Amino acid sequence: MAEEKLKKEETLAMRLKLIGQSCRLFYSEDPVKIIRARGQYLFDENGRRYLDCISNVQHVGHCHPAVTKAAMAQMDVLNTNSRFLHDNIVLYADRLASTLPERLCVFYFVNSGSEANDLALRLAQQYTRREDVVVLDHAYHGHLKSLIDISPYKFRKLAGQKEWVHVAPLPDIYRGIYREDHPNPGQAYADTVKDLIEEIHQKGRQISAFFVESLPSVGGQIVLPEGYCSKVAEYVRSAGGVFVADEVQTGFGRLGSHFWGFQLQGADFCPDIVTMGKPMGNGHPLACVVTTKEVAAAFTANGVEYFNTFGGNPVSCAIGLAVLDVIEAEDLRGNATRVGTHLKDMLKKLQAKHEVIGDVRGVGLFVGLELISDRLKRTPATKTAARLVKRLKEEDQIFVSTDGPWENVLKFKPPMCFSLENADLVVRCIDHVLTDMNANELRLENEDI
Amino acid sequence: MAEEKLKKEETLAMRLKLIGQSCRLFYSEDPVKIIRARGQYLFDENGRRYLDCISNVQHVGHCHPAVTKAAMAQMDVLNTNSRFLHDNIVLYADRLASTLPERLCVFYFVNSGSEANDLALRLAQQYTRREDVVVLDHAYHGHLKSLIDISPYKFRKLAGQKEWVHVAPLPDIYRGIYREDHPNPGQAYADTVKDLIEEIHQKGRQISAFFVESLPSVGGQIVLPEGYCSKVAEYVRSAGGVFVADEVQTGFGRLGSHFWGFQLQGADFCPDIVTMGKPMGNGHPLACVVTTKEVAAAFTANGVEYFNTFGGNPVSCAIGLAVLDVIEAEDLRGNATRVGTHLKDMLKKLQAKHEVIGDVRGVGLFVGLELISDRLKRTPATKTAARLVKRLKEEDQIFVSTDGPWENVLKFKPPMCFSLENADLVVRCIDHVLTDMNANELRLENEDI
Repeated sequence: MAEEKLKKEETLAMRLKLIGQSCRLFYSEDPVKIIRARGQYLFDENGRRYLDCISNVQHVGHCHPAVTKAAMAQMDVLNTNSRFLHDNIVLYADRLASTLPERLCVFYFVNSGSEANDLALRLAQQYTRREDVVVLDHAYHGHLKSLIDISPYKFRKLAGQKEWVHVAPLPDIYRGIYREDHPNPGQAYADTVKDLIEEIHQKGRQISAFFVESLPSVGGQIVLPEGYCSKVAEYVRSAGGVFVADEVQTGFGRLGSHFWGFQLQGADFCPDIVTMGKPMGNGHPLACVVTTKEVAAAFTANGVEYFNTFGGNPVSCAIGLAVLDVIEAEDLRGNATRVGTHLKDMLKKLQAKHEVIGDVRGVGLFVGLELISDRLKRTPATKTAARLVKRLKEEDQIFVSTDGPWENVLKFKPPMCFSLENADLVVRCIDHVLTDMNANELRLENEDI
Repeated sequence: MAEEKLKKEETLAMRLKLIGQSCRLFYSEDPVKIIRARGQYLFDENGRRYLDCISNVQHVGHCHPAVTKAAMAQMDVLNTNSRFLHDNIVLYADRLASTLPERLCVFYFVNSGSEANDLALRLAQQYTRREDVVVLDHAYHGHLKSLIDISPYKFRKLAGQKEWVHVAPLPDIYRGIYREDHPNPGQAYADTVKDLIEEIHQKGRQISAFFVESLPSVGGQIVLPEGYCSKVAEYVRSAGGVFVADEVQTGFGRLGSHFWGFQLQGADFCPDIVTMGKPMGNGHPLACVVTTKEVAAAFTANGVEYFNTFGGNPVSCAIGLAVLDVIEAEDLRGNATRVGTHLKDMLKKLQAKHEVIGDVRGVGLFVGLELISDRLKRTPATKTAARLVKRLKEEDQIFVSTDGPWENVLKFKPPMCFSLENADLVVRCIDHVLTDMNANELRLENEDI
């Protein structure tokens, strides 16, 4: 049973006092206290229900009873580290392997997407015996020191760009250097990586890895153009590097049609390393790196143990297995396709009606709605996006949030049980708010609010 | 109920195929499959019971029902991220604060000791606006790239020492440069840090932080000499750096007399940053960094959000609170003192009988037994230690393991419910094996086995 132990103002006061302020609250001017959740709904201390469009971590729905049951059963019996043999870790690895191309078959279990990407970096650097990494502009790969170094989204605001990190353009066909009118944007953007590798070689450096989110998220819910990854992989491998697909935000069937984001790039494309995280444990700290036998062998060959205290423990793996079971049993991939397609269709209809909607994109339940104040210049409508997010929360009890370099892309990454009715409601409410804003205040985009 | 889903040989075959070989198994020549555990006991697939002297993570005992119950109750109701307000995170921070000196009052929750140490490094470097770090020889602070850089135990076998990392001698009064016969080893070892800082300054560099495990563990279960930390903190601070105490292995009452390892250094000693991990969630991935208002404010001032997806979620915090409750309710600190003191006394008696025991040290249920082949030269008896570990497992169903640069220190870090009878049994079995080895094979120390 959900009970409030402190009044909201006490919780907030203690939060401000005891928790580092770098850990930010949603809606910081009027934060929300959540004490209960189920499926795609969150409930505050007064029982007020919010529709959750943003919790991609609670993948199969908040507090799914099958996940809780599996966790409990295993917690009651055994939780220890992976230096002892246990069935769960191998059964879980085997299940994950069945969703992946055959050559991705060696697993390392860790506790967060950040730990996974850090290990991926170690694997790539050990395998290639090189240091340099190519990443996409606006990428975010995690909060650890090593990952801030390869995340332009972070390092531009912090320590800056290291000499071993190289930034390729984000293949954003709405806002990038090659757009939807280009005959082959996949090839054109891949060539920017090819050119960058040549520049790197001219500096006397060699690349170790190309890191990419299979659908760049913080960058603005971007769908990579067709053919991009295969071509990039070809260039990266011929330069002696490996291709790392960061599936922390995109894996586990969110896209509906494919279990992994990189699979959108065609059945013949296979990364050398894949990292997984957020949705994997439905909120339980669980993440993973999978790679090829060759990369794993090089890591083993250094003779140094890799020990992750909690990684791959029986409870984490039991939870991971339960999440996979629920995705299948409830056909959540089918749901993601049905609801995601419907959501995108409806948003595209809104686009015809509202000038401020510049682009609607995404796959399955990974959808972006880009707001602009000028359709020709595609000027980011950052303030409009912020106002829309605020009003959807206050007037309609709907949680959405923004992403993209200009925070003008509304992102939808709801729990996978999100329904057609939920999609209809969200679209109706967006329509209503935009209509109202259009009548009253949209011209204020360039003024402070 | 614990069920074996695969036969042991299948589990092992799948493990070798699917899990990176850098993730090593205990007793790799004859690994153990564990399917159930309770308190300080582990059970294999045949129901054979092992006494567990090494699981410091399962701090209040394997599968403690109060912890499981708390986890379940919260998992059933809500698990979300810390961008929403929730009581658990603030109540947990408040409870932890009550165990710490007043100036350590700003918390960041993460998922592993490694994540905690990586964040501690970021905090220190941001606060001081410097990069260089001083660490102790043989230290281990985690498996992430940034932490391998500050862990001589790892970097000596891998990428080597970075120019911003500086290694001070391990203050080991049994085997180090100043020993038990020195009138003031705390001061003498602290002076080595002072000298090192001077060398660093002479190179035109400035230190950001001094990192130290409050009781160096991988280094060989070392108890820091009296006065060491206060003096080092004085030197480090006057050079503009901060003092980071890594309590990942030593916190949460393991020492009995003190809740935190650094408190052994006196009531007036307080680090600037403390990291916590392993025992915190009794096996659940939970860890933390606590620091001062000043350090936290500098981190906030960079204007960049720190978001840790799973860190501080309601389930993790509910588990953390339950662990604190059990430590108190079952007086596990009292037990650690009683049983740990008894264990050490009994091992010291063995030392009088067996030449191979060079040193017995530790506090509470953090105990080390150092084996040597020559009492004058203190030559590490590595092979004897390995044989002893193996025979204790095979003949007596007791799990212990080794640590120290020469893997000749038996370590005891059992679940905190370890009993006097357990201690007696372990000592009796060690006595028996050593007596037998002494009669038959001890002279083989310098030969291969």
